[in-house]
Amino acid sequence: MTELRQDKVTGRWVIMSMGHAGQKATFSALSDRIRIEELPAKVGNCPFCSGNENMTPPETVVWREGEEEDADWKIRVVPGRYPVLTPDGNDPLAEQDGSGVRPAYGLHEIIIETPQHNLHPGRFTPEQMETVIEACHHRFVALSQNSGIRSIILFRNYKEEAGASLEHPHTQVVALPFIYPALKEELEGAHRYFLAEGGCVFCSILREELEAGERIVDVNDDFVALSPYAAGMPYETWILPRKHSPSFQDIRRDQAASLAAMLGEIMTRIFVSLDDPPYLYYLHSAPLTAVTPPYYHWHLEIVPRMMKVAGFEWGTGVFINTVPPEESARFLAQTKVETYA
Amino acid sequence: MTELRQDKVTGRWVIMSMGHAGQKATFSALSDRIRIEELPAKVGNCPFCSGNENMTPPETVVWREGEEEDADWKIRVVPGRYPVLTPDGNDPLAEQDGSGVRPAYGLHEIIIETPQHNLHPGRFTPEQMETVIEACHHRFVALSQNSGIRSIILFRNYKEEAGASLEHPHTQVVALPFIYPALKEELEGAHRYFLAEGGCVFCSILREELEAGERIVDVNDDFVALSPYAAGMPYETWILPRKHSPSFQDIRRDQAASLAAMLGEIMTRIFVSLDDPPYLYYLHSAPLTAVTPPYYHWHLEIVPRMMKVAGFEWGTGVFINTVPPEESARFLAQTKVETYA
Repeated sequence: MTELRQDKVTGRWVIMSMGHAGQKATFSALSDRIRIEELPAKVGNCPFCSGNENMTPPETVVWREGEEEDADWKIRVVPGRYPVLTPDGNDPLAEQDGSGVRPAYGLHEIIIETPQHNLHPGRFTPEQMETVIEACHHRFVALSQNSGIRSIILFRNYKEEAGASLEHPHTQVVALPFIYPALKEELEGAHRYFLAEGGCVFCSILREELEAGERIVDVNDDFVALSPYAAGMPYETWILPRKHSPSFQDIRRDQAASLAAMLGEIMTRIFVSLDDPPYLYYLHSAPLTAVTPPYYHWHLEIVPRMMKVAGFEWGTGVFINTVPPEESARFLAQTKVETYA
Repeated sequence: MTELRQDKVTGRWVIMSMGHAGQKATFSALSDRIRIEELPAKVGNCPFCSGNENMTPPETVVWREGEEEDADWKIRVVPGRYPVLTPDGNDPLAEQDGSGVRPAYGLHEIIIETPQHNLHPGRFTPEQMETVIEACHHRFVALSQNSGIRSIILFRNYKEEAGASLEHPHTQVVALPFIYPALKEELEGAHRYFLAEGGCVFCSILREELEAGERIVDVNDDFVALSPYAAGMPYETWILPRKHSPSFQDIRRDQAASLAAMLGEIMTRIFVSLDDPPYLYYLHSAPLTAVTPPYYHWHLEIVPRMMKVAGFEWGTGVFINTVPPEESARFLAQTKVETYA
């Protein structure tokens, strides 16, 4: 059984293959089978481990376990050593002049999520995950203050297959001088829906999915985790705020705690039930424009990396998903997770 | 030195990083270092090897070395064993009704490019490459005759990192019931340019690049190979017909020979100078609509797979290229290739 499913936001079609088509979703063929729990808690040449603070550029932010200046840190934020975009010597207000080239103005920071090398969001304590979310929010707000920034992405790569060059748990933040294409595509789709229906397409998805129930992974007071109807990847999971909210900037402290609880729960389930797979996640939030587009709805997308992106996907932009979201959601919803620590 | 460059067709920005930003372009970190020349010419359980014809579905097309019915075949076309789209039991004319779901109607064929297991386009004879191009054209035209087909993509995955599940040289053809997003994005960009300038954006790129010269990899009577100004990947190379032509369907036999010569040359240079890397390529051609959009220009995109697609690229749609196209083009243009065979 194979069918084409259309994403309600972007209008993209996905080939949902419940049979043999395409590659099989598998982790076993992946080369990088190092389990994070087999790693040491501290690694001598890891720039993110405690004791190696001099191996990174000076920190932007450090939060400690106590009030004392020499208390152990629990989170550090450092500028990227090899930033993809940088404010240095670049004009923040350089606009596109039609020449097709402009300075690589922007900001790039690393949030070191823990001093411990072999931790993982799937094994964080609730307090630790909450601190990470608070740091993400802190940096999102801080970077948005810079002139010339139009969009910010928060993202996490886990394991080499998902593009992580360092094992030590970290999240990255990049602030860009333009609205990045994946956000632009969602904004365009959300705007189409807004013009036609007068509401938010993400809110409409939430209503439909909560009613149908078959693609819901988890629910708490403030957030819903679901497998999207036209998911492009096996076990792809989105976390959306239940109450309409265009920008991650506006999250309240109690909501941040609620998001931390939800993300920690989903990360633990993925870690346990999918056997510590490579994955990436990223947070899409409204652009940093003079006024915030009211028709957008921020969310976090988690994408376990089980499939290779080959010529078909690369050349067409069409994905082939061999695990339908109903199956993904059932699997992740049913996972009984023992407390790990 | 890092700058932002905008693709003239799609308007997408690329981070062109001539320094340390992002991952390093490298082949050495790749796990799959099996060289095709170390493989045997024939493999017992390979469904595409000569002698194993009964391991594939019956062939759609077979071309032989001579007139006799039992002469060795030089090319075979077979339906995909695990087709991503299929005509079976699906309504070819099912249109999108707003429900977000439709039958997975379409066609999927495999062009087995040679009976020999350990060949590679970089080692094909000119005649062999010409036969492959003719087969691609033959299947493009044949599949376009089916009702309900709106676009066709030809693509090739080479090595496991590029998503190839079988080593034996083959190209795939998929015919889709809608215009795939990557083509739609190019059509929209080409149409914007057409409305503003009255011409073809690809022709304009060709004029500019031929005049500038610094991103030209190779030129013959009918085709230009170039590293695009806003290439998203190291050593990315496009081959475009010099004379405006929206659809690959309209290629003449002498032009097909000229394309084969160009593609063979580029494949050989990539094979030799980049040390037999994984890559993918795909052919973008005008959609199969009642009238062909005159503002489009078909072309082939070759993408060596040196970089992992991580959270930043996946979440934003922005690529970070650590090898500027001027360097890629200089390197590939200067490569002196000894005749391999």
